[in-house]
Amino acid sequence: MIGRLNHVAIAVPDLDAAAAQYATTLGAKVGAPQDEPDHGVTVIFIELPNTKIELLYPLGEDSPIKGFLDKNPSGGIHHLCYEVDDILAARDRLKDQGARVLGTGEPKIGAHGKPVLFLHPKDFNGCLIELEQV
Amino acid sequence: MIGRLNHVAIAVPDLDAAAAQYATTLGAKVGAPQDEPDHGVTVIFIELPNTKIELLYPLGEDSPIKGFLDKNPSGGIHHLCYEVDDILAARDRLKDQGARVLGTGEPKIGAHGKPVLFLHPKDFNGCLIELEQV
Repeated sequence: MIGRLNHVAIAVPDLDAAAAQYATTLGAKVGAPQDEPDHGVTVIFIELPNTKIELLYPLGEDSPIKGFLDKNPSGGIHHLCYEVDDILAARDRLKDQGARVLGTGEPKIGAHGKPVLFLHPKDFNGCLIELEQV
Repeated sequence: MIGRLNHVAIAVPDLDAAAAQYATTLGAKVGAPQDEPDHGVTVIFIELPNTKIELLYPLGEDSPIKGFLDKNPSGGIHHLCYEVDDILAARDRLKDQGARVLGTGEPKIGAHGKPVLFLHPKDFNGCLIELEQV
């Protein structure tokens, strides 16, 4: 069912410093910051040859990653995003097998303009998993 | 400098259950367990179309992931592994820029039989980064 690893998201306490570090110290291809007000984050994508790293920084008062950064002030890996062909079929299969889908269970439109869902980390070895329909 | 994302490593409290979940619930291609006594882990690789997930479980009394699982009993994302062409050149560049290399600073042979180094998570947004020469 799951396909490619679309991205690994890393919450960072200083977006400019993290982007500069990936560009200069690690020598990667770093994109421009994009505000995603619907998701409460500003994101920068780092393009690796086979996948992307998504740097996440809180945007607005109700950012879903503010609590994560309060608990992890240095930052940390926030979630993994796997691609699926059909997000509603994926959701139904997961629910049938007892996995919990976060929120209403209805897909939202994610940072790439495509439908996404998040799965409960306690059901997946402590990892927050995003599914993105591609 | 960094190339492909070679793998994302997830420490898990029950290796058989995690492997079964990736195979059945998530429908991924799951390999056989491999003991890596030099690294104190048993690993299972999950082959995605563009990269791998490495499930990690402690092996032996001095496993380096035992402490991680004590702090994160449900499991969690343990490290990211980026590929580099020349691990000694990468190490020297990182050290010149003030990043800390863990251990002696000399590469070890990793789970794929290739030289690896680990970088200090505090220098990289709370993420433990492995570099693997390919």
